Amino acid sequence: MSLTLEDRAASPVTTGRTGYRHASLTVRGKDRPGIVAAVGSVLGEHGANIVSLDQYSDDPQGGAFFQRTVFGLDHLGSALPAVGEDLRRRLDQDFELEFTLRDLSVPKRVAIFASKSDHCLLDLLWRHRRGQLPVTVAMVISNHPDAAEEVRSFGIPFFHVPSSGPDKSAAEAEHLRLLEGNVDFVVLARYMQILSADLIGRLGVPIINIHHSFLPAFVGAGPYAKAKERGVKLVGATAHYVTEHLDEGPIIEQDVVRVSHADTAAELQRRGADVERAVLTRAVQWHAEDRVIRHGNHTIVFA
Amino acid sequence: MSLTLEDRAASPVTTGRTGYRHASLTVRGKDRPGIVAAVGSVLGEHGANIVSLDQYSDDPQGGAFFQRTVFGLDHLGSALPAVGEDLRRRLDQDFELEFTLRDLSVPKRVAIFASKSDHCLLDLLWRHRRGQLPVTVAMVISNHPDAAEEVRSFGIPFFHVPSSGPDKSAAEAEHLRLLEGNVDFVVLARYMQILSADLIGRLGVPIINIHHSFLPAFVGAGPYAKAKERGVKLVGATAHYVTEHLDEGPIIEQDVVRVSHADTAAELQRRGADVERAVLTRAVQWHAEDRVIRHGNHTIVFA
Amino acid sequence: MSLTLEDRAASPVTTGRTGYRHASLTVRGKDRPGIVAAVGSVLGEHGANIVSLDQYSDDPQGGAFFQRTVFGLDHLGSALPAVGEDLRRRLDQDFELEFTLRDLSVPKRVAIFASKSDHCLLDLLWRHRRGQLPVTVAMVISNHPDAAEEVRSFGIPFFHVPSSGPDKSAAEAEHLRLLEGNVDFVVLARYMQILSADLIGRLGVPIINIHHSFLPAFVGAGPYAKAKERGVKLVGATAHYVTEHLDEGPIIEQDVVRVSHADTAAELQRRGADVERAVLTRAVQWHAEDRVIRHGNHTIVFA
Amino acid sequence: MSLTLEDRAASPVTTGRTGYRHASLTVRGKDRPGIVAAVGSVLGEHGANIVSLDQYSDDPQGGAFFQRTVFGLDHLGSALPAVGEDLRRRLDQDFELEFTLRDLSVPKRVAIFASKSDHCLLDLLWRHRRGQLPVTVAMVISNHPDAAEEVRSFGIPFFHVPSSGPDKSAAEAEHLRLLEGNVDFVVLARYMQILSADLIGRLGVPIINIHHSFLPAFVGAGPYAKAKERGVKLVGATAHYVTEHLDEGPIIEQDVVRVSHADTAAELQRRGADVERAVLTRAVQWHAEDRVIRHGNHTIVFA
Repeated sequence: MSLTLEDRAASPVTTGRTGYRHASLTVRGKDRPGIVAAVGSVLGEHGANIVSLDQYSDDPQGGAFFQRTVFGLDHLGSALPAVGEDLRRRLDQDFELEFTLRDLSVPKRVAIFASKSDHCLLDLLWRHRRGQLPVTVAMVISNHPDAAEEVRSFGIPFFHVPSSGPDKSAAEAEHLRLLEGNVDFVVLARYMQILSADLIGRLGVPIINIHHSFLPAFVGAGPYAKAKERGVKLVGATAHYVTEHLDEGPIIEQDVVRVSHADTAAELQRRGADVERAVLTRAVQWHAEDRVIRHGNHTIVFA
Repeated sequence: MSLTLEDRAASPVTTGRTGYRHASLTVRGKDRPGIVAAVGSVLGEHGANIVSLDQYSDDPQGGAFFQRTVFGLDHLGSALPAVGEDLRRRLDQDFELEFTLRDLSVPKRVAIFASKSDHCLLDLLWRHRRGQLPVTVAMVISNHPDAAEEVRSFGIPFFHVPSSGPDKSAAEAEHLRLLEGNVDFVVLARYMQILSADLIGRLGVPIINIHHSFLPAFVGAGPYAKAKERGVKLVGATAHYVTEHLDEGPIIEQDVVRVSHADTAAELQRRGADVERAVLTRAVQWHAEDRVIRHGNHTIVFA
Repeated sequence: MSLTLEDRAASPVTTGRTGYRHASLTVRGKDRPGIVAAVGSVLGEHGANIVSLDQYSDDPQGGAFFQRTVFGLDHLGSALPAVGEDLRRRLDQDFELEFTLRDLSVPKRVAIFASKSDHCLLDLLWRHRRGQLPVTVAMVISNHPDAAEEVRSFGIPFFHVPSSGPDKSAAEAEHLRLLEGNVDFVVLARYMQILSADLIGRLGVPIINIHHSFLPAFVGAGPYAKAKERGVKLVGATAHYVTEHLDEGPIIEQDVVRVSHADTAAELQRRGADVERAVLTRAVQWHAEDRVIRHGNHTIVFA
Repeated sequence: MSLTLEDRAASPVTTGRTGYRHASLTVRGKDRPGIVAAVGSVLGEHGANIVSLDQYSDDPQGGAFFQRTVFGLDHLGSALPAVGEDLRRRLDQDFELEFTLRDLSVPKRVAIFASKSDHCLLDLLWRHRRGQLPVTVAMVISNHPDAAEEVRSFGIPFFHVPSSGPDKSAAEAEHLRLLEGNVDFVVLARYMQILSADLIGRLGVPIINIHHSFLPAFVGAGPYAKAKERGVKLVGATAHYVTEHLDEGPIIEQDVVRVSHADTAAELQRRGADVERAVLTRAVQWHAEDRVIRHGNHTIVFA
């Protein structure tokens, strides 16, 4: 069993009233009777008020169990460690489960990677400024300097880390130096460089990528040209977690838009860009709210 | 607190293996801490295996609480009364809640009302024959005799109950005689007569209607002509529970389809018909699986 | 230049009023200035009333040109050959174009192939009976006998042609015998056998297939199992013309439906079936109304 | 017959190669045989290369006729007046038609009105900066000063025209002074003030509004609160031309997004905002490209 307890300084913005905040609890492991009652009674003993609860079992007879609970609690910040301790004791004793407990008033810290195309990057920054994305954007990293001024106008640090040629070790060392200890996850917002397996491993935080096609159709580069070539009637986008296997990681969200013979490859790209930003935004929001649970190469999404 | 315990003879088809079946429990009432633990522990004491659990509270601070749980249990048929008894005792004692407990292997019995347009009727019968609708179609009632042969070819009783003129009391008396005690809900599948408030009250079972517009746009008759007249770019359909207030009952499901200036009113109607049957089918399926909870003039849908 | 003039006995049903019917003219070839005026003036000289006109050029500077015109004409049946003759003379003289001229009041004749899954077959027959598909269903051919009674209840001939094992030559000889001269196109409505290149060539009519995935994702067999395995969030269907390259022919229409982690492979299949029948119906209708023009491995669809 | 010939200084950006540009011709009036040939032959005589042609007749027997043609021409700027002259002569002589001829390389000039909500405004400015909206944004006018800095960072003039209280005559006088002669159309991008019939009449240019509901459902103010109250399962947006009858003008485009019981009115508003900006963008683009023809209280959209 693992316990991830995050309780950094709370943002006053997302706290409803003094001392009353919400936490999320995600539980995953082997399905067995009694889990709901066990979790419910621990939360009940602490006076927690369950706001929402979603649960899924991929096979009621010995399958895998997934649960997301959001609850409120007086003096959440100081009370959460004891809740975690009791959950650990109870779930360790009777079940084979992992759980994550997190104070939702503390936004996750994210770094956004971008290249020349900035529609996904700007949509994220824009929604963030409107208070629609519950994250702290710690920094933007790009292999092109173009977006520096725009990003900084949002009050967000911008770092230009050039990355050309086959040897990316210098760039990745710089990435690691900037990111280590500073972010809870990374978003590749149309970042056109491939991260090495080494960097992915050393970062040790979830990485979300937006792929500009309806995966697994049109893996790899140039999907809109391929889509035009194949004469498809819909183009799509896919947000997925990054693994060392390119375009193969667990899918978080997908969507499509209708196109026709009259759309050129450039127009497919423009229509696709709207889908890309919408899909990536949903994936980032769901991840930030602990709505996505990874399981093998799949995701459980309690949207 | 009310207890609705339905346990008619189980359909062998929907029972996974001998003695092991699923039940649904829906709970609604005033939100208070501890409900989840209370429900979970009663189910746990009976050895129930919770398969899925959905929960919603419209205001964590003293709002209304809604929960749908599906669980498996050995010898469900004989065990369910005791589960109901314990739930009643526990929920009565500590909370202000209503609940419904139902053996899901016992399909709800439905009567389908139709008039001349039979696309919704036939789609329901067709899906039912394929095993996609977990209901027993007890009968079809129509104010036109046209569909008799087709309906009976599905092995389903058809009753022609003429209903013209302002005085519908004779027809409604006949409806009551046919339906009373025989059905758990009624579906108006493009039935073009208005049911009187008296009939609705005396039937005492939920009635689902399909309205051929995206309510509240185009209430009343002739919505496709009105949609053409208004030059809308989408036409829709709405499935809702019937109340004595025409076209005003709680909405269960809605959808739309894109149309253009080039579509005539007749073409709007044809495109709309596809949406109508899809929307009605979803509403009937969700109702049959206890996924819809009425609350005031709204619905909570755990789809 | 080729001329395809079809003028079989007109169906009185689709003729608006005596002697007044509609024809479609599709033109394709090298784009050059003056085509619209040339076609327009030939039609004008014959007193034709153009009802709709769609046009597309994939590159205004020397690209390919596509046009679909629908026009009305008094005494269309007897007047059409002269229109065709004049078009041929005019378009031959000044342009490099092919055209097809067809009396729309004469429905195309179609054979539908099916296997055990009958949702696509029945949706086509059902819409046809309602007058929504402007085709004559000449026959249904299946490698399973199951649907015989149902198909014949629509008044349509059913032929059971078994086709198992690697050698399909006997079955295909029977197919050819049944189809030759009797149909204008063929629809594979979830027919689970592969047609040989030889049969495709000898049939010499367009063949429309419905593939149960969003091509090019999940080519080949078992796409819903593959979709579940990959954890996609949408499943789709693709209607395409059949070529000797399996799953590679020109795409006519595609659509998708949203699914979630909670859907089993069987539920993906059930949701997918609704998309399959909708997509196939649109493709068949558009083909029947001469709205689809093949160009290389693509289609131009004037929907 | 009316002739609108616009030929201001061409933007070099949208001109394919020196001297070769595109024009749009929209024709509307009483349908009669021969129109296509007449238009085609005038264009042909001038050596025009027709790039696309769309046509619609609301009744082939004496209905209304609508056509949009896009054509290329060497030295378009100097050649267009003669084309217009010949069209006028020809269409005047034989038909009852109005037409508009416009050099597409000259972007229409637009003024955008906004209030506090800036999601629609910013989406338009953003797409414009990316070269995706073929317009010249002449100015932004708002009754709030908040967006001044942001708008000016796009290099676009911003004018703050306060407009509170029942008497809007001072504000509207200012509007008129700013707009007269400077714009070809106006976009109300969530402008929360009602324009008087007098202002609409004196402006004399098309005005496009975005209404935050699927009209005619939820006309007037507060549609998201009303949608929540009614328990709808979809919320939508409508772009329409403004007439003196509030929320009653010809609809250009509509779309919807799925919502659930779990969405608060604030969340409906946030989801709806995404639909609003998408719908408004499409409407503005179509209007800018002469794809929308008004007819009575409807629109013909050749999208």
